[in-house]
Amino acid sequence: MSSNRDIDTLIQMMAKLPGLGPRSARRAVLHLIAKRELKLTPLAEMMQRVAATARECTVCGNIGTAEICDICAAPKRANGLLCVVEDVADLWAMERGGAFQGRYHVLGGTLSALDQVGPEQLRIPALVGRIDSEQISEVILALGATIDGQTTAHYIADQIEGRVRLTSLAQGVPIGGELDYLDDGTISAALSARRDI
Amino acid sequence: MSSNRDIDTLIQMMAKLPGLGPRSARRAVLHLIAKRELKLTPLAEMMQRVAATARECTVCGNIGTAEICDICAAPKRANGLLCVVEDVADLWAMERGGAFQGRYHVLGGTLSALDQVGPEQLRIPALVGRIDSEQISEVILALGATIDGQTTAHYIADQIEGRVRLTSLAQGVPIGGELDYLDDGTISAALSARRDI
Repeated sequence: MSSNRDIDTLIQMMAKLPGLGPRSARRAVLHLIAKRELKLTPLAEMMQRVAATARECTVCGNIGTAEICDICAAPKRANGLLCVVEDVADLWAMERGGAFQGRYHVLGGTLSALDQVGPEQLRIPALVGRIDSEQISEVILALGATIDGQTTAHYIADQIEGRVRLTSLAQGVPIGGELDYLDDGTISAALSARRDI
Repeated sequence: MSSNRDIDTLIQMMAKLPGLGPRSARRAVLHLIAKRELKLTPLAEMMQRVAATARECTVCGNIGTAEICDICAAPKRANGLLCVVEDVADLWAMERGGAFQGRYHVLGGTLSALDQVGPEQLRIPALVGRIDSEQISEVILALGATIDGQTTAHYIADQIEGRVRLTSLAQGVPIGGELDYLDDGTISAALSARRDI
């Protein structure tokens, strides 16, 4: 492709990243090589550093550089609220919102009969353990509104029912959303969960 | 964002690559961290290696790992044909086509009054020098069909007129193209360059 083996290998590695393909990988690699001191070397060094230090938090499953992540280690986050998410990307999305001030529990996926993912493959036993040890008063199930996500939510609800308050994220019209562009399921959900003004 | 400084820095670096944005950079970094031995470390090492070895060919401007790139060093490529391209990405695109068996000359951009790019900022003097020293019989101007590309083509034509055969890529309907989706300029060009069947 570039008539050079190392550069071709680098392009192929980049092309396998989610969101990139062969063309954008070529553009990215040429861009990096053109500014190698300013961009390529620092990027490679930061990747090395993250590869050496990144690890899963042993409590919640978030990715950080310590045994216990910053969120689990923050004392003011210990307010009895526990938000259950599917993966680290969802945890980061919740944090960007900035509205939640409790702690998290990352399942590492959803139950899936097709992919043979059972409760043991997820961090569900650890979740049950945390409810007692951390004096959790409310578990918020922030799982995706998909079949697998809802199956997982029901399974977790069965496991911890009666021990804590159990809530889920509201379903309805997204902020800035226009009714004409929403699917029927969302409109039905928003209608049945309608509120007094 | 991720509540960890190194990981955030890595995401920001990735987000600045062409073709990536904050969301796809986050996905790529989480993907890399999840498979750090298999993906993140090898990618970082290959970047280090390319950063240490990649360099411009002193003859044509292609990117490789030697002082003279593989194309310039291949004896069977010395057939008197020289293809002038704007940048390395265009050279690679020509090579993917596989139809051209001569050598290349990478200008490193196009003349541009707005961006203050003159002939000295490009590799035009080196091009003129090569025509004599390499016994070039034909120069193919494979520059973009843009205003800047065509301005550059005219300037080069002025500089080397009469010394070699000077050609440019044909303009017309792309293979697989449908007339209904082509712009007026392309249809006009294809019509005026029509051929007997």
